[in-house]
Amino acid sequence: MAATELDQIVNLCKRRGFVYPSAEIYGGFRSSYDYGPLGALMLRNVRESWIRTMVQQRDDVVLIDAAILSPPQVFEASGHLANFSDPLVDCTKCKQRFREDHLTDPKLCPNCGGVDTFTAARAFNLMFRTSAGPVEGAGAEVYMRPETAQGMFINFLNVLQTSRKKPPFGIAQVGKSFRNEITPGNFIFRTREFEQMELEFFVPPAESAQWYKFWCDARLQWYIDLGIPAEMLVLRPHDADELSHYSSGTSDIEFKYPWGWGELEGIAQRTDFDLNQHAQHSGQKLDYFDQATNERYVPYVIEPAAGVNRAMAAFLLAAYDEDIVNDEPRTVLRLHPRLAPYKVAVLPLSKKDTLTPLARTIYATLAERYMVDYDETQAIGKRYRRQDEIGTPLCVTIDFDSLEDAAVTIRDRDSTEQQRVPIAQLTAEVAARLGF
Amino acid sequence: MAATELDQIVNLCKRRGFVYPSAEIYGGFRSSYDYGPLGALMLRNVRESWIRTMVQQRDDVVLIDAAILSPPQVFEASGHLANFSDPLVDCTKCKQRFREDHLTDPKLCPNCGGVDTFTAARAFNLMFRTSAGPVEGAGAEVYMRPETAQGMFINFLNVLQTSRKKPPFGIAQVGKSFRNEITPGNFIFRTREFEQMELEFFVPPAESAQWYKFWCDARLQWYIDLGIPAEMLVLRPHDADELSHYSSGTSDIEFKYPWGWGELEGIAQRTDFDLNQHAQHSGQKLDYFDQATNERYVPYVIEPAAGVNRAMAAFLLAAYDEDIVNDEPRTVLRLHPRLAPYKVAVLPLSKKDTLTPLARTIYATLAERYMVDYDETQAIGKRYRRQDEIGTPLCVTIDFDSLEDAAVTIRDRDSTEQQRVPIAQLTAEVAARLGF
Repeated sequence: MAATELDQIVNLCKRRGFVYPSAEIYGGFRSSYDYGPLGALMLRNVRESWIRTMVQQRDDVVLIDAAILSPPQVFEASGHLANFSDPLVDCTKCKQRFREDHLTDPKLCPNCGGVDTFTAARAFNLMFRTSAGPVEGAGAEVYMRPETAQGMFINFLNVLQTSRKKPPFGIAQVGKSFRNEITPGNFIFRTREFEQMELEFFVPPAESAQWYKFWCDARLQWYIDLGIPAEMLVLRPHDADELSHYSSGTSDIEFKYPWGWGELEGIAQRTDFDLNQHAQHSGQKLDYFDQATNERYVPYVIEPAAGVNRAMAAFLLAAYDEDIVNDEPRTVLRLHPRLAPYKVAVLPLSKKDTLTPLARTIYATLAERYMVDYDETQAIGKRYRRQDEIGTPLCVTIDFDSLEDAAVTIRDRDSTEQQRVPIAQLTAEVAARLGF
Repeated sequence: MAATELDQIVNLCKRRGFVYPSAEIYGGFRSSYDYGPLGALMLRNVRESWIRTMVQQRDDVVLIDAAILSPPQVFEASGHLANFSDPLVDCTKCKQRFREDHLTDPKLCPNCGGVDTFTAARAFNLMFRTSAGPVEGAGAEVYMRPETAQGMFINFLNVLQTSRKKPPFGIAQVGKSFRNEITPGNFIFRTREFEQMELEFFVPPAESAQWYKFWCDARLQWYIDLGIPAEMLVLRPHDADELSHYSSGTSDIEFKYPWGWGELEGIAQRTDFDLNQHAQHSGQKLDYFDQATNERYVPYVIEPAAGVNRAMAAFLLAAYDEDIVNDEPRTVLRLHPRLAPYKVAVLPLSKKDTLTPLARTIYATLAERYMVDYDETQAIGKRYRRQDEIGTPLCVTIDFDSLEDAAVTIRDRDSTEQQRVPIAQLTAEVAARLGF
């Protein structure tokens, strides 16, 4: 098949209820999206797959859930108040504002064509600011976090004291972050409000290089295990001039987007920068005393930082396929079963009441364990196509024979093959096919 | 046992890593909390239990995930810009600000004792406001949502068109909301940043009363099914003067907090208020055409609105217990297995290397399916007590006999009874005891 175009995914997402423009009835809210029934389930599956791999299956990583609103001290220490900004210029002719580093021609306004009409660049901080408490003013200033990472650093001591972990160990978090981007765009890949999945992995400084390598490989493998072909992924080390103010080395996992290779996830060596900054600003000792070696040290940090929304989009792009089944073109999302919004669709062949009780019982049994769709409308062929298009791995069809032989038909999304299965073995068969 | 005091829960939460004050190394950020390793897992379990009951097991409810930042049009229509405010007065003597409706004496300042020193009350809007895009000013004004509900109303048409549901059906959402409360307090029960679990259930107007009754009963039962004793819960209909501007009737599920009965969840009849308001302000038709009756109508809405953090606190208060085991006092969290942060603890009797490979294998097998703790420190009795205190339903102990008889000991948190189980049957035994 040809490479998936962004439009194909955007259209599918809108048509089937994965993603809607935010506040669409009011004309939309630029570069902001709401996730519909299928998108909300898929976001949840991306999150849960990350937590399963990064937290549940590792006894050296714990999860936390820190506040979004943070006092300015946190971002003074982290350097975000001073450094987390874009250079903006104003066109004095048309009054439009631009990112200086995005201008094709540094003298020519792309909006009105004015020449030499730009002001000098000013630093524009990317953090959203608001005010907490009844009095507006400096004392009550708070920021919406631009990354979840700082929540892990400022809770390093709390976690160390209550979880009895010791380096190498990690603190993970999944949650929303906010950046007042001047130029959001490309659908859900760059939005002002987005959801991160970040791990801060604290290690003895001497082990930093080996753990950096470990996490680069492990994170790349995560995407492959969840169905993205290896040839659509590449690990690219940053050049020295691309590095953030806190990093001694970063690699991007890049994905082959319809518009070219671009960042999917970053794995950064943050060294001891953040713990040192917070120690200095708070006056607290943010270090670890190793009783085995009798040494006290500030751990180094390896940070794999992924995006829930961006990962979902990449999974959709990689899964999108069109083929021919029974001489008819078909759109199919070949999503990994863990990522598919619904795992099973229960489809009574007819709406007639005779099939309903059995179909409802089968639905209720499967819904104990899985997210299941129930659909009794339209011809069965159309229903299969709809489930293929939203990525449901298995369809279970109840027909009139089912009332006699206590068996149903399971249909596989990818092969479209069908098999008759006794109802008594259905849950076991579904679990075996899904792998969970 | 005596009723659980708030202090007992606050101390346990801090000591064991459920809840930390936000930005604690900077002296804290008033009435804001970060959730540590156990708290983050428990919040996730509360969310997932709600989604399981409200979405997964009902084919008439879909989940969505809408943006937190919203343009002002949404809250002009909803009435929040005009009505969602507290009356504040300033003391002209000490310059402190108070909620007028919370003053014990309307003339006497509780801070400086000034008499008749208050200004007239002014309405203080509870929504957090910020500015999006590079230009500060009215055009770029955005609000942090004060409730998740509006996300469901403004997406009503999108969901109707893409999910093929029809009334009675519901749209559910779990996510953070923000209210600039003047007087937050009582630990995690009232904070400026909090997480909601809301369902908007759209019904034909004539069925409104019966669905209101249905959801009042169903929501009360949810807490009971997850372990809160029925005598700690009561359903209390609001008096007419307590009703919100959109409601024709509301009941609170109240919980017996250490400081008395108070709201745990509200079930409101929002009528057609919100859809009508958004239809009027957006110019879109937000109604449903019923092909069976050939009638067009604006659905009425029943809204069960619960809080993730508040529910977690109530579950902790109800689960907290102290008893005597082997002549020693014990603290135990009798949490429902679905809510317990860890489902199983794997405890090799000794740190000696001979037990480690088997213990790690058992850990890895159980961690495929469950959140599992692994602990090889301290005496076994101490480790049991620790797991009791954090609510882990089952402990699996690997001892030196395990290497010979391929069996381990399962210990039950509530009864403290122990049973020898073949390793080959361990996963099935754990699943049977947990119930999932």
